[in-house]
Formats: sequence, C-alpha cells, structure tokens
Amino acid sequence: MQEGLRERKKRETRERIADIAMGLFMARGFDSVTVAEVARAADVSVNTVFNYFSTKEDLFADRQRMAVDLPQQVLREREPGESVVRAFRRDYLDAIDTRHWRHGLNLGGDVFARIVGASPALIARMRQIHEEREEGLARLLADQIDAAPDDLTPRLVAAHLLNTTRILSGSAVDRMRAGEEWESIEPDLRAQAEKAFDLLESGLGDYGREPLVAAAGGEAAADQRDAESEDQKRERDDH
Amino acid sequence: MQEGLRERKKRETRERIADIAMGLFMARGFDSVTVAEVARAADVSVNTVFNYFSTKEDLFADRQRMAVDLPQQVLREREPGESVVRAFRRDYLDAIDTRHWRHGLNLGGDVFARIVGASPALIARMRQIHEEREEGLARLLADQIDAAPDDLTPRLVAAHLLNTTRILSGSAVDRMRAGEEWESIEPDLRAQAEKAFDLLESGLGDYGREPLVAAAGGEAAADQRDAESEDQKRERDDH
Repeated sequence: MQEGLRERKKRETRERIADIAMGLFMARGFDSVTVAEVARAADVSVNTVFNYFSTKEDLFADRQRMAVDLPQQVLREREPGESVVRAFRRDYLDAIDTRHWRHGLNLGGDVFARIVGASPALIARMRQIHEEREEGLARLLADQIDAAPDDLTPRLVAAHLLNTTRILSGSAVDRMRAGEEWESIEPDLRAQAEKAFDLLESGLGDYGREPLVAAAGGEAAADQRDAESEDQKRERDDH
Repeated sequence: MQEGLRERKKRETRERIADIAMGLFMARGFDSVTVAEVARAADVSVNTVFNYFSTKEDLFADRQRMAVDLPQQVLREREPGESVVRAFRRDYLDAIDTRHWRHGLNLGGDVFARIVGASPALIARMRQIHEEREEGLARLLADQIDAAPDDLTPRLVAAHLLNTTRILSGSAVDRMRAGEEWESIEPDLRAQAEKAFDLLESGLGDYGREPLVAAAGGEAAADQRDAESEDQKRERDDH
C-alpha cells in the first residue's frame, strides 16, 4: 500500500516530535521535561503533541511501541523450514552485529535505560509494552501454527522467547551503564546468546539435579552436565 | 528460630490490617477505599497502617509479597535428585489439587484479578512483584548451582519457570472470571500444566517449523508433532 502525502506528513510530524522529546529527556531527565516544553521545541501546539501522543510516557515510548511489531516481523520473515527458535536466534545475533535498537543494544541504549530506571511511570510503561509484545507475538504464532483456541503453547513460546532476549539485553545494558566498552561486552553477549537459545531449544531437562545428589557440585559438574548428550542423560536416569 | 511474643503480636496486627483492607477492596474496589477507612475499620491509627505498609498498593499486595518467597521455598525443598523443572511441576500440580492462593487458583482468585485489572497502580505493582520474584529465584538458583557470576542461565531458568506458572494461572483465572465452574476448568488446567512443563523440560526444538514447509498445517499436523519422539524428529530432519 502506497503511503499518501497526508499520511507521510503525519508520520514525519510524529517522528519529529518524538525525536525532539527524546533529546530533551536525555539531556534533562524524563520527569523534569514538560509536554509544553516539547511542543515549544518542536514548534507545534500542546494540542498537536497530544493529538499524536496521549501521555508523556507514550512520547518516550514511541519507538518501543514499534518494538511491539518487530518480534512479529521475525516470525513473518522466517526462512523456509526455519524453526521459531532458530529465527529468533538469528535475529538476535544480527542485532548484536548491527547494535540495533530493537534489542536495546544501540549506542545510547544505556542512557535510555537510565532514564527509564529513574521514572516509576516509565518502568510501568515498559513492562506494559513487554506484555503487549508477548500477546501480539503469541497471537500471530497461534495463527501461523493454526493452534487450537485452548492451546497455551503459543503464549508460552512467545514468553520464553521474549524473556530470553530481555535478559540477554538487560545484562549487556547493565554492563554498558557500568562504563564497560562495547568491544569487551560484545563477545560475551554473543556466547551468552548462543547458550540461552540452546537452553530454549533443548529445554531445562535435568537442570539443577546434581548439586543435591553429589555434594561435589561447582563449575566442573555444571560443565560436565552441559557436555552430556540426551542419551547419556537417559542412561544415567536408568541407574 | 522461635517467634517472640512481640514479633507474634506485630505479625498478627499486620495480618489483621491486610485482611480487613482486602475485605474493603473486594467490597468497594481498590481506588474508592482510603487508607483512613482501612485504619478506622481495623481500629488503629493511620500512622500504624503506614508503619506496616508504606503505600496502599502494599496493603493490597501483602500476600503477593509473601509469594516472592514461595518459589524459593520450592527450590529449597526439592527432593533428593529432583530437577528444578520437576520440583516446580510438582508444586504447581499440588496447587491445582489444593486450589492454593500461591498460584492465584483459590476461590476468590477471580475477584482478586478483577480488582487488580481495574487499577493501573495495582497492575504496575503486580508486575513489579513478578520481577522481584524472578530475581529472588534466580539468586537462590545461582547459589544452589554454584553458577559463575556471568552465567545468565539461573536468570533464564527462573524467568521460564515463573512465566510458565503465570500463563497457566492467567488462563485459569480468565475462565473463572468468565463464570466457568472450577470443576470444568481443573482437568484442562492439569493437562495444560503437564504440557507446559513438558515444553520447558524438553525445549521448543522444532516448534513452528513445519507449517512453512508443508502447507498442510492444521491441528492434525500439530497433534502429530506432539506425538513424535525425539528420534522421529531427528529422522525427519535428515530427509
């Protein structure tokens, strides 16, 4: 569908207001910037701002709103024969390569996280967006798989996928906020992502079983567990 | 550790205030009850209420706060040689049997959910509690497994476990709210729980792979997939 002149102008105005607001928030913090100031800086009326964004939180979360659609796009653009986990793994590794904002890994992702962390209203808004993202992804997944209406699997799968990327990105952004360079974060994040998607693909299985059996425990036992094949696990279970 | 007389009195006062508040909230809705009314009904001063609960949301969420510790208890009380997934599966099935409030399945769980759903402040508070629950569980898991400090697996495992129970209970409570009898919800919930914990234990694997390969799709294909063993999947993948 071609975007008309009117739609394009509206979209551009919306984006300009959101960009200017983001600049003000980053410079002075979310709570100390008023919508009137955003309107003045963008050279529009306060009413115009509210035509596009019903709350100040929406103004901040504009790009995050777009992020509700992005996981669905990953699903739609799966390669033929590609499983859901594989598609999300590929998308996440690509976001690491390109430091794309869709997973919060962009330059400035730490500033964004700091602003959110300082405002209870924004924290609440971000959690809400996370839920909307999960619901939207679950709905599309149920459609694609043609799941029965009472099948909870699409919702579970959506939650597991989005929690995986949330925890991966959260850990990377914490390190950015602590002043660590991207060059040293990046290889770790890549390794953690491979491990996290492996966990998702193969399941938790026996996780946490041994430390209670043998007091040995420790990293050695964990490494050994990681290296075990499904068959080995089954064999041990039969003892 | 024995609870002293003073501690016991404090705990009892706290519980009495929370119980009375819950009664008022259920009768008249969260937003229309003031802390002063709670204090009057419990025959204490407003200051006393605030000594125990710093906000009105805390007053409502008191029992939910306890729920932060409950997943950790499941972990602590695992049976010898029991994996983490198995322990949580057992705990959840037990909560279905006893309709325990720790998973929101109690009589009145639907009323609780309706009150929360009507108040943005409570929705935000519940989401926050969910995060605290996840963080607490992840910390204890990391301790028990003796995980390396940069190992994200305990956080991922905690998130996957708690999202599984959240989605299962959410679906059951939605049906309670729609007026369905527990007797008809219960067997479905049990079957869904078994399936959800199976997914967690064995992983998402090939989930969502076929519908793009063969246009056949539909429920038949999904059922067939569920019935396949790991070996059958591997065999098909080799074609």
